Amino acid sequence: MKKQGKTSEGSLIERIVRAGTRPDSALAVPAGDDAAIYRPRPGYETILTCDWFLEGSHFLADRHPADSVGWKCLARAVSDIAAMGGVPRCFLLSLALPPVRTGAWLKSFLAGLTKASRSLRCPLAGGDTTRRDEILVNITVVGECGRGRAILRSGARNGDGIFVTGRLGEAEYGLRQLNTRKGIPPLQDRCLDRLLYPEPRLAIGAWLSERRLATAMMDLSDGFSTDLPKLCAASGTGARISAQQIPSVRTAARDHRKFDATLLALHGGDDYELLFTVAKRNIARIPKALCGIALTQVGEITARKKILLDRAGQPVEELKNQGWDPFRS
Amino acid sequence: MKKQGKTSEGSLIERIVRAGTRPDSALAVPAGDDAAIYRPRPGYETILTCDWFLEGSHFLADRHPADSVGWKCLARAVSDIAAMGGVPRCFLLSLALPPVRTGAWLKSFLAGLTKASRSLRCPLAGGDTTRRDEILVNITVVGECGRGRAILRSGARNGDGIFVTGRLGEAEYGLRQLNTRKGIPPLQDRCLDRLLYPEPRLAIGAWLSERRLATAMMDLSDGFSTDLPKLCAASGTGARISAQQIPSVRTAARDHRKFDATLLALHGGDDYELLFTVAKRNIARIPKALCGIALTQVGEITARKKILLDRAGQPVEELKNQGWDPFRS
Repeated sequence: MKKQGKTSEGSLIERIVRAGTRPDSALAVPAGDDAAIYRPRPGYETILTCDWFLEGSHFLADRHPADSVGWKCLARAVSDIAAMGGVPRCFLLSLALPPVRTGAWLKSFLAGLTKASRSLRCPLAGGDTTRRDEILVNITVVGECGRGRAILRSGARNGDGIFVTGRLGEAEYGLRQLNTRKGIPPLQDRCLDRLLYPEPRLAIGAWLSERRLATAMMDLSDGFSTDLPKLCAASGTGARISAQQIPSVRTAARDHRKFDATLLALHGGDDYELLFTVAKRNIARIPKALCGIALTQVGEITARKKILLDRAGQPVEELKNQGWDPFRS
Repeated sequence: MKKQGKTSEGSLIERIVRAGTRPDSALAVPAGDDAAIYRPRPGYETILTCDWFLEGSHFLADRHPADSVGWKCLARAVSDIAAMGGVPRCFLLSLALPPVRTGAWLKSFLAGLTKASRSLRCPLAGGDTTRRDEILVNITVVGECGRGRAILRSGARNGDGIFVTGRLGEAEYGLRQLNTRKGIPPLQDRCLDRLLYPEPRLAIGAWLSERRLATAMMDLSDGFSTDLPKLCAASGTGARISAQQIPSVRTAARDHRKFDATLLALHGGDDYELLFTVAKRNIARIPKALCGIALTQVGEITARKKILLDRAGQPVEELKNQGWDPFRS
């Protein structure tokens, strides 16, 4: 984090650093120099990931509470570390702000970011700030895992079981509810909470990595129907999914006609659950739940490179990619 | 770098990865997974830095050649690694583009980026892409240095000599020339070249770090009058600068009345030269030039916390911070 004297940029950075995202022993110098120094542990590999979080594209400043923007920008980047089976160690924050957002909005944003930073044990190491008409956030997370222990997307093999964590479609259902209301909504809804304050599945990712139980893994950020084909393409496989087995969002009774829970689960993005595959001989070692989060088998990897969806009582169909792609929408 | 199937985002990423910024042995997995894996060398510390490079704020798409945008976004981020005395190892690219820029503009941008990546020995490790109305670039560079060898801003002490590399004000002079022309200028001017294709001073930074000759160091990105006070503030010192000793840009005869070269050198940004301090007993060990780049003493660190400027024949004045601050301009 580049620090300046008594200029506005300098005071902005001081507020960010003071916000409590304190460096831990992994960081050799405090924020304020040209760059941050990170001490890797011997025998570990470093995991690097970065993520855009842009006003208008990824959040709306007048609909999403500022503290949820702070929480979510870090949580979704850390989710990529969870998806490799790693542990986060520190992050860099690149923040561009309009001057009008440097008051109450920034304070609340930093409160959410600090909360995520503490909860995920991922302290601020540095970053860059500038001025811009819209709020732009870019987060780089540095994590680590034991050498050779990272779980890639490319390891799935014919016959492997396909699993997901949690319940899919909850964030999408939350988004639909957010879109039917005006202004920033009160937070009492589970699915709104899942949309605004997602929890990366770090403990489950690390558990699978330690036991070498997952052959391939990724996080579900763009939607199951968009993400599963990426895992299959990286592994050179196809998949057969049973729609009935997918743990779908529980919609309110008043919404049963409005929304098909299975469609929300198949195509909704932003869940940050894990998608992973397990060799047949190890499937029995996967518990029904871990740390209170369900682990559910939803299908199996096939040699034939198609993604097929089996809906009970209907002919098997090809699963169409209907998730999120910024260049398509 | 998250890779997708046959969607536009997927093909965009494939083009970026194919552009030739190939992973080296520091990278354990090729681009295309949730995150990149980096293998730190035992006994080394990791240096982390990130930098915004935004259309309209840091470059103009209709004035700056696209390949210079590609070169400069990486070179200026790598300059922060040089400023710590480190060596770059890999980088992450976050790129947001309007669809209209995914053709010729992107091709030329990637050519410049690839050239910088090869020249600076800093391969692409991963990143994130999205769509946006304007071109947004954020670069994270991962570097390394021997444990305890990083040169911070905070080590300057009373009596240390203050040095700069190269010639200051060249990029600012190039910018003024760019601003007096229409369209993208032909590249034959040294100062335009310095503005558009800056060269981070990696060899000099590493030389100073290996010999433990610099007590403090930073790169000159916002301008000497803005950056020197940051080094002094971090070190708890002041400085006395001799205006006559500053190696200033050589302006063309036709511009002698228009521009004061000393003012360009004092307040111009974007030079990416190094500013460093050397203990009195070691000053004689600093050569006049290294790798063809001049090393010039321009003043000395003082215990009194003021930055004084000595202009021959004029009363000593306080050096006013007139460099770049995004929140002031």
